[in-house]
Amino acid sequence: MQDSIKACLDCHSMCLRMATTFCLEQGGRHVEPKHLRLMLNCAELCQTSANFMLSDSPLHGRVCLICAEACEACAKSCEQVGDMRECVEECQSCAKSCRAMT
Amino acid sequence: MQDSIKACLDCHSMCLRMATTFCLEQGGRHVEPKHLRLMLNCAELCQTSANFMLSDSPLHGRVCLICAEACEACAKSCEQVGDMRECVEECQSCAKSCRAMT
Amino acid sequence: MQDSIKACLDCHSMCLRMATTFCLEQGGRHVEPKHLRLMLNCAELCQTSANFMLSDSPLHGRVCLICAEACEACAKSCEQVGDMRECVEECQSCAKSCRAMT
Amino acid sequence: MQDSIKACLDCHSMCLRMATTFCLEQGGRHVEPKHLRLMLNCAELCQTSANFMLSDSPLHGRVCLICAEACEACAKSCEQVGDMRECVEECQSCAKSCRAMT
Repeated sequence: MQDSIKACLDCHSMCLRMATTFCLEQGGRHVEPKHLRLMLNCAELCQTSANFMLSDSPLHGRVCLICAEACEACAKSCEQVGDMRECVEECQSCAKSCRAMT
Repeated sequence: MQDSIKACLDCHSMCLRMATTFCLEQGGRHVEPKHLRLMLNCAELCQTSANFMLSDSPLHGRVCLICAEACEACAKSCEQVGDMRECVEECQSCAKSCRAMT
Repeated sequence: MQDSIKACLDCHSMCLRMATTFCLEQGGRHVEPKHLRLMLNCAELCQTSANFMLSDSPLHGRVCLICAEACEACAKSCEQVGDMRECVEECQSCAKSCRAMT
Repeated sequence: MQDSIKACLDCHSMCLRMATTFCLEQGGRHVEPKHLRLMLNCAELCQTSANFMLSDSPLHGRVCLICAEACEACAKSCEQVGDMRECVEECQSCAKSCRAMT
């Protein structure tokens, strides 16, 4: 579970930072509503997932499953937008880690 | 959706306030680990659900479903602990509202 | 304090919703990095302020003061960007309410 | 700033985990209202501080300052309660790191 908490915190940090700095500064496809929303939603769900694991919630597996789906959707969107390889990798790695918790 | 956002915000406020003031001050069964954790987890998930609806996330239905389960578990725990009727009602009402979003 | 909690929750909802739906869909000045960041920061600080008041934290006055500053900066930015009167009013009202808590 | 973000995330994880698992399971002084509230408030403010640094908010210095105060109060409370050395150290280290950002 330690690994999965770390993956969620890392993915939260990456998505929030990229959304509010890189994407906003790049503009164009990077601020397309669906993409930026996904980035912010993914960041928030990673935070919630981490918090549910940290507090040993019986619902953590359920939250991790949706978190994995958010990460996969975010990775896909980052690939389509381009220039976001680091974010793609963090999301894919977090998705894998979250699926292992379900 | 407006009603459901309001229900989530109300339930978040109720659970967070009751957990950190009433339950901690009462002690005894009110600070039993499973109960207090459920109260805090329910508060956090209600907040996340509200945020996903506010940002029109395509995952909001999925988050609302887990939120409904957290609210139902929290209502049950509050009933067993006793002296928490207001919280039971808020959780049941939020659970119903969240299920309508799924 | 009840009024101030309500003002923070209302302002959080308004800023998060406007940032992730209206602003992203409008584009142009509405997605200018400083503006959108302020909207998201204001939303988050309003949430934290509400949570500190709900849990009766001795630090709530300190958090409310920064929240008031975030709301004032956000109101100003919304005025400059234009077409955001509702958000301006919510931010000004929350700033006033938060200042009364300090 | 990277170090300070990491310190906040580490302190958030430590305080949330200890509050919702160790403290609740120990009971007694560990669930004394002032102590547990401080733990939860400290965890939340560390999260908000991290998010404000990650999103490059102009208000991050202000938020870091209150975060440092919350961490110092939490470290003191953990020392008085006892058996919480790890948490004391994490809070002191985060307080120092946050003060450097102000």
